[in-house]
Amino acid sequence: MNPCVPSTELVDRVCAGERRAIARMLSRAEAAGSEAREALDLLYRRAGRAHVVGVTGVSGSGKSTLVSKLVAEVLKSERKVGIIAVDPSSPFSGGSILGDRIRMGEVSSHPSVFVRSMATRGALGGLARGTLEAVDILDAAGYDMIIIETVGVGQDEVDVVRAAHTTVVVSAPGLGDDIQAIKAGILEIADVHAVSKGDRPDSDRTVSELKSMLGLGLVATGIRRAVPVIKTCSPKDEGVAELLAAIDAHRQNLLMSGEYEERRQSIRERRMLKAAEQVLHDEFERHRQGRMADLLAELAKASISPHAAALRLLAHIGMEVTR
Amino acid sequence: MNPCVPSTELVDRVCAGERRAIARMLSRAEAAGSEAREALDLLYRRAGRAHVVGVTGVSGSGKSTLVSKLVAEVLKSERKVGIIAVDPSSPFSGGSILGDRIRMGEVSSHPSVFVRSMATRGALGGLARGTLEAVDILDAAGYDMIIIETVGVGQDEVDVVRAAHTTVVVSAPGLGDDIQAIKAGILEIADVHAVSKGDRPDSDRTVSELKSMLGLGLVATGIRRAVPVIKTCSPKDEGVAELLAAIDAHRQNLLMSGEYEERRQSIRERRMLKAAEQVLHDEFERHRQGRMADLLAELAKASISPHAAALRLLAHIGMEVTR
Repeated sequence: MNPCVPSTELVDRVCAGERRAIARMLSRAEAAGSEAREALDLLYRRAGRAHVVGVTGVSGSGKSTLVSKLVAEVLKSERKVGIIAVDPSSPFSGGSILGDRIRMGEVSSHPSVFVRSMATRGALGGLARGTLEAVDILDAAGYDMIIIETVGVGQDEVDVVRAAHTTVVVSAPGLGDDIQAIKAGILEIADVHAVSKGDRPDSDRTVSELKSMLGLGLVATGIRRAVPVIKTCSPKDEGVAELLAAIDAHRQNLLMSGEYEERRQSIRERRMLKAAEQVLHDEFERHRQGRMADLLAELAKASISPHAAALRLLAHIGMEVTR
Repeated sequence: MNPCVPSTELVDRVCAGERRAIARMLSRAEAAGSEAREALDLLYRRAGRAHVVGVTGVSGSGKSTLVSKLVAEVLKSERKVGIIAVDPSSPFSGGSILGDRIRMGEVSSHPSVFVRSMATRGALGGLARGTLEAVDILDAAGYDMIIIETVGVGQDEVDVVRAAHTTVVVSAPGLGDDIQAIKAGILEIADVHAVSKGDRPDSDRTVSELKSMLGLGLVATGIRRAVPVIKTCSPKDEGVAELLAAIDAHRQNLLMSGEYEERRQSIRERRMLKAAEQVLHDEFERHRQGRMADLLAELAKASISPHAAALRLLAHIGMEVTR
């Protein structure tokens, strides 16, 4: 494909489901150049149909294998599936020491499946700026379910949850000395819990511990509905159909209760605010050599505070704030 | 103390090391009301002497106990120590399910020690807005070393590291099936590694695994100096003096190489940018009912994209960006 293919033509090809066009558009979104802006804006307007599912859990929880089994299960219902695999990366080097790319096996080559690995950690922390736009692209391209898979715990997970309609937290039996989801503070964010490695003797204990913690959570946090805990065993294909049923049921429940639109609206608001932060960040970068350098010199002398410097920097880029 | 005590008087009392004034100022910083602004700006200008040490590691690593032993060790050298303990909290409820407050034991009541627990997760993710200002307060109040202790892994840790002059990562033997620091992606951020529970037979394995991973890291990431790995056993007071020596040596190395000022300058820059983001966030909050509501309605109809909505929102608060 010509590298200079115009945005509108590329958008049409993406919406027709053309794989090469999708791949190119994803690369443009990840590069986040301003030339991709028009196409991404058009694609946002043509997206909005897909079920976005976040799958999270610590490294070593068997999550990638479970995702590949889940994808095979979704394919049985004639749905198209997009997978966005967010890789862990060091906060400083931007690179991964233990690269842990998704191992999708045979399903990744299925014509109804599109897999894309993306870098984590944008300049502002959390998910890279292209991740949510990648969801739009696959959505507009006709993928019925889009799975965002993340590795590790922390801000990425929180971002994924806030971007997903349904969140699955995967826990493995005996991975730590306690339930990892609780430690990571991600107990409450799950819409569905999956316990992997269900052939291990301690998996039942993990299931019952999760259920009892969720029971406490219902009381403590006022969560409205019971969160299903599904025991799975990927090599034996056990629990995978049940997991998909729970994911589909969660969406149905949201649709019936009217919460689906609520959730989508809060995702939109968050995206708008994140985009504004990004614009601000880009503006600051433009002033790194000029006004910002002067302010940093004043900060070093402690003649102003970081807050006062921030107000002056904002004033310099046109924003007058009096407080 | 009178609640209406003027800022300048409160600042003077803080700088005189008056404990009640410090406590009041910390509360004002955490509340983050604009009335605290003047005092915080003054305190920033009177801070800058303390050695800021971040101590991080997963829950259950014995980190809090080790910190209390470390504090006792610092006291032997006639230094004053401030501890800011950042509690884990759920990203959604803002509250902690498994409250894990620092257990400082006898050292917390020592006249040269000031302990403060603070909430994690500010509105923008990462550390709450008052955390770095709390460092300024304790610094201006004459504390020689300020320890920021965080629980869990993720964005908080990255923020702590970026706020600290020296970062200690605590790992416990056998807590997971591999070294937790590597999983969490925080291997590279440590200036000093501490292995806790050194009386356990598998602690030597953890030490040697960390050392070999660090060896790989030296090659892969071009880290300039060797990172010490200190085996500690808090109940027996073993390794604690060595840990403090390594922390002090790290600061000396930074001072000798000129990196200390570099690091402090990057902390200042980051604080200025974070403050600007916070101002933007507060401005948006003011428009939640008006312009922002209109834009959200347009986003829901998909008549504009999140990026376009962000530009209009910024324009509304006075910032014209053309891209």
